[in-house]
Amino acid sequence: MNIKITGTGSYIPNVITKNADFHQHEFYNTDGSTFPHDNETTIKKFKAITGIKERRYLDEDLTTSQMAIIAAQKAIKASGTDPETLDYIIVAHNYGDVKFQSMQSDTVPSMATRVKYELQIKNPSCVGYDVLFGCPGWIEGMIQAQAFIRCGMAKKCLVIGAEALSRVVDKHDRDAMIFSDGAGAVVVEATEETGGILCHSSATHSYEEANYIYFGKSNKAESPEDERYIKMNGRKIYEFALKHVPNAMKSCLEKSGKSIDDLKKIFIHQANAKMDDAIIERFYKLYGKKAPENVTPMTIQELGNSSVATVPTLFDLVVKGEMKDQKLEKGDVVIFASVGAGMNINAIVYEY
Amino acid sequence: MNIKITGTGSYIPNVITKNADFHQHEFYNTDGSTFPHDNETTIKKFKAITGIKERRYLDEDLTTSQMAIIAAQKAIKASGTDPETLDYIIVAHNYGDVKFQSMQSDTVPSMATRVKYELQIKNPSCVGYDVLFGCPGWIEGMIQAQAFIRCGMAKKCLVIGAEALSRVVDKHDRDAMIFSDGAGAVVVEATEETGGILCHSSATHSYEEANYIYFGKSNKAESPEDERYIKMNGRKIYEFALKHVPNAMKSCLEKSGKSIDDLKKIFIHQANAKMDDAIIERFYKLYGKKAPENVTPMTIQELGNSSVATVPTLFDLVVKGEMKDQKLEKGDVVIFASVGAGMNINAIVYEY
Repeated sequence: MNIKITGTGSYIPNVITKNADFHQHEFYNTDGSTFPHDNETTIKKFKAITGIKERRYLDEDLTTSQMAIIAAQKAIKASGTDPETLDYIIVAHNYGDVKFQSMQSDTVPSMATRVKYELQIKNPSCVGYDVLFGCPGWIEGMIQAQAFIRCGMAKKCLVIGAEALSRVVDKHDRDAMIFSDGAGAVVVEATEETGGILCHSSATHSYEEANYIYFGKSNKAESPEDERYIKMNGRKIYEFALKHVPNAMKSCLEKSGKSIDDLKKIFIHQANAKMDDAIIERFYKLYGKKAPENVTPMTIQELGNSSVATVPTLFDLVVKGEMKDQKLEKGDVVIFASVGAGMNINAIVYEY
Repeated sequence: MNIKITGTGSYIPNVITKNADFHQHEFYNTDGSTFPHDNETTIKKFKAITGIKERRYLDEDLTTSQMAIIAAQKAIKASGTDPETLDYIIVAHNYGDVKFQSMQSDTVPSMATRVKYELQIKNPSCVGYDVLFGCPGWIEGMIQAQAFIRCGMAKKCLVIGAEALSRVVDKHDRDAMIFSDGAGAVVVEATEETGGILCHSSATHSYEEANYIYFGKSNKAESPEDERYIKMNGRKIYEFALKHVPNAMKSCLEKSGKSIDDLKKIFIHQANAKMDDAIIERFYKLYGKKAPENVTPMTIQELGNSSVATVPTLFDLVVKGEMKDQKLEKGDVVIFASVGAGMNINAIVYEY
C-alpha cells in the first residue's frame, strides 16, 4: 500500500494589497521608536529582503474556515472523491476564524466541523479535527493522515491548511507586510499505485526558540496592553531556519532512499524569498552541488506568507500547470518542507 | 506490543466558586429577556439538573498552558519517564491561553510548545502540537498517540487536556455555572505488558449538530456584538448525547472483544450529572442490565465541566486513590468516553 495525493485545491483571496498601500502606515520599532528614514525606504528594504511585492487578503465578509471550504471543494472535485467516503478532515490553522475588525478568535466548533458541515457530509465516521503547529501545520496534518492510513484507521483524508493572518497583524509593525491569507487542500489516500509519501520528519525546537513567533502588543507605544497581534523575531528566525532546515531536509531525503539527483522540486514554506533561497542553496551545498534552476517554485512575491496555506497552494498551482516554467511528471520526487512558530520544522519526501 | 498509560497527573485549580456566588449575577435568556423567578430558584433548578454544587477557576495570574504544565509534570513524575525520551507532546484544548479579563485567545506558539519549553526538553525530535476537538479532545489526542505508536512513529507520548472555560463564559448566561477550569495529563507508551488500549471509536456529527456549541454574543441585550463567549444549546445536546453516546460506547466495547461484565469503570466526560446518569443507564439497558453501583466516578458536583480536562483528571484521581469508593486493579477493563463541540463523540476501551 502507498499513500498518494489524489486531488488538490486552493483558494487565493481576491484583495490585492500592494507594497505601495503601506506608504501611509505609521511604522514603529518594537520599542516604540520611529525609523530614521521614510516609509518609502522602509518598504524598499522590505522588498529587497523578503521579495514580497504584493499579498492577498480575504474579503471583509469571509473568514478562515470559509477559505478552507472553497479549497476543500476544489480538492474533492479534482480527486473525484465522494466526500461521504472521507475518514478524516484535518484542518491546520493557528488563529481560527477572526471576523474583520474583531480581536477574537473563534475556534468552537473546530474549523474541521465547519468544513464538514458546509460539505454537507452526513457520515459521522468522518472525523474532523484541527491541528495547531505554526506554519508547518499542513505538512504535520499530512504526516498525521499518513499515520492513520498506515495503521489502518483511515483510507482517505482531506488535509487543509487555512489562515487569515491579515486579521491578526499589527499595522504599526513592518512585519505586517509579510503576512497574507489563503487556503490549500489535498485529498490523500491509500492506493496500489507506486510512489506517494516516501518518508517524513518532524521536529519542535522550543528550548531557546519557543517565543521567536508569539502574540504581543502593538509597536505603537500608547496601544492597549491587552490587544495583541502576531509578532516575530525575524533575525533569529532567519538564523534558526538557515541552521536547521537544510539538515532536516537532507536527513529526510536520505531516509527516503532517493538521491539528490532524483529530486525534482522543493515545495518550501513561503516566509521570505531571501531566506528560502539561502536554505535551498545551503541544502544543495550539503551535497556539494548548486541548486538547479526552477527547483523551488515561489509564490511569495505575489502571495506573501499565508502560513499553513503556502505549501498546499504552491503544490496545487504547479500540479494544475498554473505557474510559469513549473510542471510535475509522474515519478518526480519532491520535498514538502516548512518552518514556523514552535519553532517547528517538518518535511515529507513524496513521489508524484 | 501494547500501549499503556504509565503515569497520570492533574491540576485542580484553587479558586472554589460556589453556586451561591452566582446569586448576584444578572441572568438573561438568549433573547435578552429576564427570568420569571429569582436567581435562587434559577440556581436551585440548575443544581437539580446538572448536579453541580461548586466549580474550580484558575487563579487570575494563571493560564491554560500553565495548568497543562503542572499536570504534565505530575504525569511525568508518576511514570518515572525521562522527559527527553518523549516522542510527542499533544495538548487538547479549545481556546488557547486567555488572560484574566482578556477577550483574546493566545494560541501561538502552541500550548504544546509552551509545555515543552517549561519542561526544558531539549530533544527536537519530541514533537509538540495542539488538537482542537471540543470536549473529547483529550481522548482524541490519545487515539492519535496510539496511532503514532502503532505505526512506529513514536514509543512514548505525553497527552494533555487543559482548558480555562472561566475565561470564555458569559456571566449573563445561566450556562456559565456549568463551566470550569482544569488540566489532566498522561504518559502513554509502547510496552510488553498485557492490556492497555484495546480499541477506540471516534465520530463527528456535524450535519445538523455543528452549532450546538458555539461562540456567540452575551445574553445581555446591550452587549457589544463583537464580544463573544462559549454558548450552547443544552436541550439539543442532551437529546443528542442520549441518542448517540450509549451506542458509540457499546460498539467500541464490542470491538474490544470484552463483555459488559468485564467492564469495571466508565470514565465519562463530566458535562451534566443527570445527562451522564441517563447515558450510563441507557448504555447498560442496551445489554438488558442495570448499571452497577460506583461504575461511573463523578467529579462534576465539585469540579464542574472542565472540558478536555475532565476525563484525564477523573482517571488520575481514581488511579491515585483520591476518590471515595473508587479504585482500579490491574486487569480492570474501563471505558473512556466523551461528547462535546463538533459534535464529537469518542471512546477508548482500556485494560488497566
